[in-house]
Amino acid sequence: MGRKMFDLCGRDERLRFSPYCWRVKYALAHKGLDCEFVPWKFTDKEAIAFSDQTKVPVFVDGDQTVVDSYEIFRYLDRVYPDKPLLGEGAAAERARFFKFYAERSLAPGVMRTILMDVFNAVHPDDRDYFRTSREKAFGRTLEEMHSPSQGLSMLDKALEPMRGRLDESPFLEGDEAGAADYLVVGAFMWARVTSAADLVSNADPVYAWFQRMLDLHGGVGRNATRIVDVDGAYAN
Amino acid sequence: MGRKMFDLCGRDERLRFSPYCWRVKYALAHKGLDCEFVPWKFTDKEAIAFSDQTKVPVFVDGDQTVVDSYEIFRYLDRVYPDKPLLGEGAAAERARFFKFYAERSLAPGVMRTILMDVFNAVHPDDRDYFRTSREKAFGRTLEEMHSPSQGLSMLDKALEPMRGRLDESPFLEGDEAGAADYLVVGAFMWARVTSAADLVSNADPVYAWFQRMLDLHGGVGRNATRIVDVDGAYAN
Repeated sequence: MGRKMFDLCGRDERLRFSPYCWRVKYALAHKGLDCEFVPWKFTDKEAIAFSDQTKVPVFVDGDQTVVDSYEIFRYLDRVYPDKPLLGEGAAAERARFFKFYAERSLAPGVMRTILMDVFNAVHPDDRDYFRTSREKAFGRTLEEMHSPSQGLSMLDKALEPMRGRLDESPFLEGDEAGAADYLVVGAFMWARVTSAADLVSNADPVYAWFQRMLDLHGGVGRNATRIVDVDGAYAN
Repeated sequence: MGRKMFDLCGRDERLRFSPYCWRVKYALAHKGLDCEFVPWKFTDKEAIAFSDQTKVPVFVDGDQTVVDSYEIFRYLDRVYPDKPLLGEGAAAERARFFKFYAERSLAPGVMRTILMDVFNAVHPDDRDYFRTSREKAFGRTLEEMHSPSQGLSMLDKALEPMRGRLDESPFLEGDEAGAADYLVVGAFMWARVTSAADLVSNADPVYAWFQRMLDLHGGVGRNATRIVDVDGAYAN
């Protein structure tokens, strides 16, 4: 029994854009573990009903099922202890902050920058679900939430601590990438796959970091299909 | 030969408000190390000339002199390895991010909230130096930079990842406080000592965390003299 992960896909099955799924792809690549990435749409709730919840990533390893990207990191460290992701003690406690930094500092700015691009990228079957669920959560329409100028301004401020760190070292974890980098890179892959927007200028240390992240582990990020590579991806 | 630290003081010698000095005070308390805290003013450059630079904290331990709060953390771990602050490997790499988070995400919002309070708190001999050096760095007057509404709004956004983490654990480092907490708490002590402003509401998980931090290690933070405790501290 092999490993598989249910992986959010878009209007083209090759478009894989969930920031949470990207965390796990980097974590698996870090460990050198093969995995089948099963394309999944928001409305495919039946396909993951066995996981007793409704979101991806859902990771299946033989007879084990693990949900939530951070829980999958923990599972991978437990079952495949070589090349630790989170580690133990203070290392593990400190890793946890990067989850919240990615989700609460970076993601809101990225989201407001690319929201209509994400809406365009989702599978046609998911469009109604995506609009309805997001508009309910935001209390506003997608069109009202989408504001690249505001989003990029939010992101610019939120990136300040990353810039400080990346001015002195190639990765958030120092000389080699690790869990902190993987927890954060999902937000950048989300934008890279769905949008042509540049989140940071090429003079930004965060830009150079992301280029290194794209090339890591055999180009796991670099090789991802982007919306700009898909014929007809902007047709209705 | 004992330990001493040159420690920024204000118009009353008991007012100790440097966020960088506070990091070291918490680190020393964490290790259980005694230290003499020598009051120092911005314009006392002569007193610390032996350190070959012009800023506090300057930490002297026997014949060793160490400057920069983060370097002092490293020194303490090297010379007093019990109860590690930064630790090693991934723990140490991840700790570094909290330095930048405190200085680049939190401090700008705190600063804009309390700047005129800090100006009021500095020693009369330091007022001209403080105004001139800060206005040169900002490219604006102190009065233009001081904006509690803007500062609190900046801080509110910057605190989001801390809130996420502190919703699930009492300290940034989990069940017990550690270097991550100490690197961040300096920004809060800076405000507590110099200002009557509330940085966060008492319903905020960050408020509860700061109350725990104040009580830590025998009340190292709680016992600090505040401007509001000093008679005549708002007279010119």
